[in-house]
Amino acid sequence: MIGAARRRLTSIAKDRVGPVVARRRPVRTDLDPATWGLSIGPAGTLCSGSVDLVELSRRYGTPLHVVRADRLAANAADAQRQGGAEIFSSYKTNPVPAVLRRLHDTGVGAEVISPYELWLALRLGVPGDRIVYNGPAKSPDSIRTAVGAGALAINANTVNEAALISRLAADEGRTVNLGLRLSVPGAWGGQFGIATIEAAAGAVRDALGAPHVELRAIHVHRGGTMRDASAVEAHVRWALERCDELRAVTGWSPELLDLGGSLACPTVASFPTREFRFNRALGTDLLAPDPSTAITIGDASVLATRLVGEHAAAAGIPMPRVLLEPGRALTGDTQFLLTTVLDVKDDGPLAHAVLDAGINVAEPVPNEYHQLFSASQPGREGDVHYRLAGPICTPADVLYNDWRLAPVAPGHVLAIMDSGAYFVPFSTTFSFPKPAIVVQDGDDVIEVRRRERFDDIVAHDDIEL
Amino acid sequence: MIGAARRRLTSIAKDRVGPVVARRRPVRTDLDPATWGLSIGPAGTLCSGSVDLVELSRRYGTPLHVVRADRLAANAADAQRQGGAEIFSSYKTNPVPAVLRRLHDTGVGAEVISPYELWLALRLGVPGDRIVYNGPAKSPDSIRTAVGAGALAINANTVNEAALISRLAADEGRTVNLGLRLSVPGAWGGQFGIATIEAAAGAVRDALGAPHVELRAIHVHRGGTMRDASAVEAHVRWALERCDELRAVTGWSPELLDLGGSLACPTVASFPTREFRFNRALGTDLLAPDPSTAITIGDASVLATRLVGEHAAAAGIPMPRVLLEPGRALTGDTQFLLTTVLDVKDDGPLAHAVLDAGINVAEPVPNEYHQLFSASQPGREGDVHYRLAGPICTPADVLYNDWRLAPVAPGHVLAIMDSGAYFVPFSTTFSFPKPAIVVQDGDDVIEVRRRERFDDIVAHDDIEL
Repeated sequence: MIGAARRRLTSIAKDRVGPVVARRRPVRTDLDPATWGLSIGPAGTLCSGSVDLVELSRRYGTPLHVVRADRLAANAADAQRQGGAEIFSSYKTNPVPAVLRRLHDTGVGAEVISPYELWLALRLGVPGDRIVYNGPAKSPDSIRTAVGAGALAINANTVNEAALISRLAADEGRTVNLGLRLSVPGAWGGQFGIATIEAAAGAVRDALGAPHVELRAIHVHRGGTMRDASAVEAHVRWALERCDELRAVTGWSPELLDLGGSLACPTVASFPTREFRFNRALGTDLLAPDPSTAITIGDASVLATRLVGEHAAAAGIPMPRVLLEPGRALTGDTQFLLTTVLDVKDDGPLAHAVLDAGINVAEPVPNEYHQLFSASQPGREGDVHYRLAGPICTPADVLYNDWRLAPVAPGHVLAIMDSGAYFVPFSTTFSFPKPAIVVQDGDDVIEVRRRERFDDIVAHDDIEL
Repeated sequence: MIGAARRRLTSIAKDRVGPVVARRRPVRTDLDPATWGLSIGPAGTLCSGSVDLVELSRRYGTPLHVVRADRLAANAADAQRQGGAEIFSSYKTNPVPAVLRRLHDTGVGAEVISPYELWLALRLGVPGDRIVYNGPAKSPDSIRTAVGAGALAINANTVNEAALISRLAADEGRTVNLGLRLSVPGAWGGQFGIATIEAAAGAVRDALGAPHVELRAIHVHRGGTMRDASAVEAHVRWALERCDELRAVTGWSPELLDLGGSLACPTVASFPTREFRFNRALGTDLLAPDPSTAITIGDASVLATRLVGEHAAAAGIPMPRVLLEPGRALTGDTQFLLTTVLDVKDDGPLAHAVLDAGINVAEPVPNEYHQLFSASQPGREGDVHYRLAGPICTPADVLYNDWRLAPVAPGHVLAIMDSGAYFVPFSTTFSFPKPAIVVQDGDDVIEVRRRERFDDIVAHDDIEL
């Protein structure tokens, strides 16, 4: 009875409050498809350059990740702008070999956080001096591998780990390029980095006295996202102050200042929980971020480098090399996910469309703004409120709680934009195989990862046991 | 500045409010290891029957899932108690072939929700009449396969899908055993089931008039968890009322009443968000559920069957076969996850231990009570507050925000209990390969799924492209 009463109250609130709130709140304006190089083609369907996305989805099946080689190259070029920092791609954000290979071909290095990612960087032919090894869970074997490969920096997460790295290098009789990660106060997990300058100073002294250690780097990663120049500047200045404090007590300055990642993807935004609640309960629109308010990766890189240079000049010390480890800013908007509408259910208070992509392949979508286009019917104004659910049989599998579209029908193809960050690494085989990935390079499309087959999912099981 | 002020206020609140709140709240009492057949062995380490878990973790590496064959058999036997329902294992909850094979060997059927799961059931030799096919995303091919296999019931999620299933059966010239899923109001996603009795009645009439359709089943799945008899009874009575309404307008009664799943795992509990906030912010304990308050799967099965029988007798209609689709109640507490402490970081206000298992392999842990034991040092009272973080380099990778343990050190093995539901299907290859799975059968341990190798993760990539 309490459940029924609550539902009735919710229903009344929705009917009465919903329109009032909705009237007072701005209406979503879709970002322009041209932002991603998309346009409406001669067949009236959405095209990526010359490639018809509905045709593409028929050829490879959906869900399908499409990587735009040109956009990846453009982001890599912007990131490595003259006067900027050295760029290391965050492997965990987008670990697709075809993506990483293209980035490395432009000179981008590898930022790896696990034994597997270190293995992958070496497998892709990345030279040791273009590899930075981070993360809280480095195995002894992987540390030995990184030492042997001459990694540019192995950044210790804790004082204990710094000692372990020194010991392993001594065992191998090889010199290690060591870095120390410092905790950044605020939103980020306390599991990361050395918490105090006192502890870091102790680690600096130990490293300076260790025969097989070249102490090279300070590593700081802000976490969250830095969307504008002031956030970048505050982070850099904070890092430089910590370096000053360390220098004051140890006399040591880093040759490498690794400022981490956290740069925003301009077309993606997080929302306060309230916005999601309003969207879910009252059908108010989630609003697209204004991409022009995001600092470009190149501007951030040049700004950070300038600030570090000015600081070094003022302090009368050699300028350290500046490293950035962008993830979402580098690859987020270079990829999108095509999905097909499987069923439409219109017998309740809100229309539901069931898609063949859900949280199994698009985990970030319920918590961020990701522009959605109909590839089958682009450019049509739409005012049907849909809840867009995924295929896995759990109520949590909702990608968009309430999104206005022109009427959709089974077989329609939708494009979820900005699937280039955290979609692939967070994907599961929950009831469905993982999707294929293609790279579009001008008029050419090549399949770089094939769709999983059913028997792939149990390939490591002894199915008779 | 605002960030700093907020942190300072949080710190004051924690120092002042924390002890007051903590004093007024009960202290965690660990569940007894004997609940799971665990005990302290001769070496002072935790043993599962005769198997030393520290030794086991050295032999196979960690993270490692350990399935207890005896507990699986016991749950299957209880579920299929005389006088109870027919039991169909929810494949999505635990899709490990070795687990499913053992369940099927006891007579448990297959409840599948995707083309892949249907393929797996047939691959495991489950006869069609022991397969129920649910889910919102059945492909036409998979419907044809299920029709061809003579599935006991293909439960349509929507009126549209019921029509599609009928059409495909007619195309094949085969008769389909059709069921209709009805929406259950309340917590569950509106994407599931036919929303109104009027719409369902229309689907019943269509199905009764279709030449290749045998309309057999009504399917209802409550969602959430039903922890006691009254919840089970309310769900069954609700379903029977819907059947009465349908019979009143169509004259039709189901031969199969599929009551879905949602039975609780006795040793696992969800908490209100507030409990997690207190735990995270103030270090108050999360409290173990009392397993004796959970209705056993057998009692629930017998209760449901009795209620359906009484209802049929009163209505003067033949008693339908009663189906249950347990997931977590059947497999949740038959499996646990061993993990190794990689590093301990004690330089901040809260000690952190980094584990080799995180949300990549134990996704449910941050949102449920899962008993944790030290396998290396069981039975020691502990009052060190640890934040237990996983290996992936993101602040979200925290399994236990604040859990009291005796002091832990790198190399210690911990056991996360009740990993038999939703751990494996929600696991990812985020920066780390997926773990091995072993089955313990008395004194014997066999590896049923081997650990992923690095090259497995990119096995479907053309790494040269």
